[in-house]
Amino acid sequence: MAVPVWSVDPRTGNQREQAAVEATADEVDAAVRAAHAVRDALADREVRIALLRVAADELTADGERLIATADAETALGEPRLTGELGRTTGQLRAFADEIEDGGYLDVIIDRADASLTPPRPDLRRYKIPLGVVAVYAASNFPLAFSVPGGDTASALAAGSPVVVKAHPDHPATSELAGAALRRAAVKVGLPEDVVTVVHGFDAGVALVKHPLVAAAGFTGSVRGGRALFDAAAARPRPIPFHGELGSLNPVVVTEVAAAEGADEIGAGLAGSMTMGVGQFCTKPGLVLVPAGEAGDRLVTTLGEKLTDVAPGVLLDGRMRDAFLAGVDARKRLEGVEAPVDAGEGEGRTVAAGFLTVDGGRLLAEGDHDLLLEECFGPLTVVVRYADTGQLTALLGRFPGNLTATVHLGAADTESGTGARLLAELTPLAGRVLVGGWPTGVAVTPAQHHGGPYPASTSGSTSVGATAIERWLRPVSYQNAPEALLPAELRDDNPLGVPRRVNGTREVREG
Amino acid sequence: MAVPVWSVDPRTGNQREQAAVEATADEVDAAVRAAHAVRDALADREVRIALLRVAADELTADGERLIATADAETALGEPRLTGELGRTTGQLRAFADEIEDGGYLDVIIDRADASLTPPRPDLRRYKIPLGVVAVYAASNFPLAFSVPGGDTASALAAGSPVVVKAHPDHPATSELAGAALRRAAVKVGLPEDVVTVVHGFDAGVALVKHPLVAAAGFTGSVRGGRALFDAAAARPRPIPFHGELGSLNPVVVTEVAAAEGADEIGAGLAGSMTMGVGQFCTKPGLVLVPAGEAGDRLVTTLGEKLTDVAPGVLLDGRMRDAFLAGVDARKRLEGVEAPVDAGEGEGRTVAAGFLTVDGGRLLAEGDHDLLLEECFGPLTVVVRYADTGQLTALLGRFPGNLTATVHLGAADTESGTGARLLAELTPLAGRVLVGGWPTGVAVTPAQHHGGPYPASTSGSTSVGATAIERWLRPVSYQNAPEALLPAELRDDNPLGVPRRVNGTREVREG
Repeated sequence: MAVPVWSVDPRTGNQREQAAVEATADEVDAAVRAAHAVRDALADREVRIALLRVAADELTADGERLIATADAETALGEPRLTGELGRTTGQLRAFADEIEDGGYLDVIIDRADASLTPPRPDLRRYKIPLGVVAVYAASNFPLAFSVPGGDTASALAAGSPVVVKAHPDHPATSELAGAALRRAAVKVGLPEDVVTVVHGFDAGVALVKHPLVAAAGFTGSVRGGRALFDAAAARPRPIPFHGELGSLNPVVVTEVAAAEGADEIGAGLAGSMTMGVGQFCTKPGLVLVPAGEAGDRLVTTLGEKLTDVAPGVLLDGRMRDAFLAGVDARKRLEGVEAPVDAGEGEGRTVAAGFLTVDGGRLLAEGDHDLLLEECFGPLTVVVRYADTGQLTALLGRFPGNLTATVHLGAADTESGTGARLLAELTPLAGRVLVGGWPTGVAVTPAQHHGGPYPASTSGSTSVGATAIERWLRPVSYQNAPEALLPAELRDDNPLGVPRRVNGTREVREG
Repeated sequence: MAVPVWSVDPRTGNQREQAAVEATADEVDAAVRAAHAVRDALADREVRIALLRVAADELTADGERLIATADAETALGEPRLTGELGRTTGQLRAFADEIEDGGYLDVIIDRADASLTPPRPDLRRYKIPLGVVAVYAASNFPLAFSVPGGDTASALAAGSPVVVKAHPDHPATSELAGAALRRAAVKVGLPEDVVTVVHGFDAGVALVKHPLVAAAGFTGSVRGGRALFDAAAARPRPIPFHGELGSLNPVVVTEVAAAEGADEIGAGLAGSMTMGVGQFCTKPGLVLVPAGEAGDRLVTTLGEKLTDVAPGVLLDGRMRDAFLAGVDARKRLEGVEAPVDAGEGEGRTVAAGFLTVDGGRLLAEGDHDLLLEECFGPLTVVVRYADTGQLTALLGRFPGNLTATVHLGAADTESGTGARLLAELTPLAGRVLVGGWPTGVAVTPAQHHGGPYPASTSGSTSVGATAIERWLRPVSYQNAPEALLPAELRDDNPLGVPRRVNGTREVREG
């Protein structure tokens, strides 16, 4: 019997509508086989470019309904979701541009050279798609990290069909977005099975184990992501699993920065940690503030600003329970104080708050390691450090992160403090910020949204142009005649892709 | 009590000398900690360039002793080992050239742009070393895929210290090569702990589980490699495991090619499959030959040439036992014939041979799948295919490979046969050859020595310039002041590395 998938309004907890049914094992199998069967249709680069651009158009055309549905399912609000839709369509178009650029193919050509010992054959390398990609959608970005998000866009750009496991927090939005992508496929002459959406926990597990699934992308919790990572690694034929699992996103405020800008930093922190009701994967979850008067001032400002923040609704009731339990467990730790109490708000809301603890507590062995784990929701932990020695010791205990941020004062660059801190933060994260706040992840080629485990299970990014690398593998042709080579590898380079030929880089003219 | 590691002469089975002792768990821990402690010393690119070049010089200077020792331990012969030493030193120098080139850093710079929505920050991305790399040496190339081989060279080039688990088949060679690398380190002013050699099975297991080991490279068997891969994935913090495990290296001979060059192809096959006594990871282990007269002639020539090949000594007694058992198990399969019997030769040698089987047998379910597994040593399996339909069906059953080769006739390109076969072979391998033989792996940027599982546990190559990618991860700096950026990311690009800046590729002049 079909298991219904309900769309739920997190503001009320009420079921809105039945959005879909859970996919059975047979249905997952059929979806993967259908995707696999149409993979060759994505080989043509022009059709992939068209697909991504038309997909952006289709999403835009259905924007009003998408945003209203997403808001009803996630409570993230129309302004934020309007921005997110723009980000999502921009991302699809950016990957179309990357296909046109062709640099992602990483073409290297070494022509035959009989004068070498041993003689060198003609070798021509580029990258080909891996095959069907399984995408596990995130809860917190119902568009940009969900069905039409970066994983799907980059996989399609690479030439890989996609089966998306929808997130249960926004099944109706997922269905609408999936339909838009499939309409786009048909409009550009592709089979619609290049993208399929499936629902259900068991479907997700079946997907990562399917023999024809060649790679997976995931954004979500450490527990869920690690279970799928383990399943991907345990397959008879293991597959790459690109999971973004969790991140504390530490922020360091130097003595000088605190003295110069305590109020501004405190206010900025309050804004960043409550963005999207604290449900950003880049939320600053731990802030290292110096002991002393300037740091006190920063903390005071943070508290004042947080009391002004209206309570918000989390994505679902389970997350609300986990947030409240997480806050409670942290508050109970010895030496932890709660100047502004995060916790239950009116109705189904939660209030934003923060905790403080002395650095020495965190350095001692014991339960305080809980403070080094992400707490999803509007909470941050302010750690007061005694001196730079203690700061260094604290940083040495941190797990991997998506981001690490340092707020420097004017004198910190010259004094060497800035260089030292950058050197200490770089091993901890995939993106290192000087000033500003980690929330807000620019979609641009130089972006890196990943980082040491558990921030990511791989060395790749899930945002920005290089995300496409995850779905490709290199292949070299040896002594293949010109007539049998793909266009990208032919001598005359008809597509004008950037190449390295006999050690020299050739770039497109003009 | 220390467990001795003996150097054994495979020609006699006698112990030559005690080459080392097995590393205890404490010694492995000490080696990894020492490597981790000196990692910052490798940050300077000039010193890495010097290290690799001086390492090549040191190996060359000790070449006579290295070759004699390797020959005494592996029976591979001085001519082959002389060539392998040249390949090894050339490889070290080639990675020094890659550091100078700088393209491996994959620098992308997107400057701040306030006109965008949302405004774009300044983002600058390059790659940094992962940390200590564990290298598991192969048996069959005691230099080029062992202590001073491609994994070590590429890891040092990336800036990662290395702990090598030596292969038990050539411990004395490993000690000599390790000493040469450590001498080179000292000569260029580096701590010698940037490279350490350890011995022993348990040491290898401890290494992949060590919390400070950040990545691993392996060349060897499916069983051993998969066990280490599983251990790497099961760690609290999983690490990338780049394993090259096994490959059948299928070869397709078309009707036209057989008609045009049966004798030449048969003779070429005999040479390739017996190179290094059949102990190349790229040995053509399965050859698809058309049924009919031309194919018969190819098989006859193969048999004639193989009877001329002198029996050879395998790398160790265990491999000899496994080879003889593998040949025997395959010969027992229904419908398998052995026109030239591979098996025991005089003394400790083995004779080269080949098996034949009809394609139909291989398509039927059952024990014949054994023929799709690599048999390490001088054996190949000739599969006689009835027609192109059967050929396609056969190719569809193959596992992943390092290489796939097709021999085409003059008419095959125009008829579309060539294009069809290239399309069918490309999904099966990391390198696709048109004509020639897969043994012989050019060390050059366009090389790809990897392939779908079990050829490799990752999408990377272990030979050629891009092997360096395995030991790096990207990091992006956001809004970092010029003074705090690494040289590669500064506006003036003092090192002249290739970069993509605001979408435009900048390459070194001249």
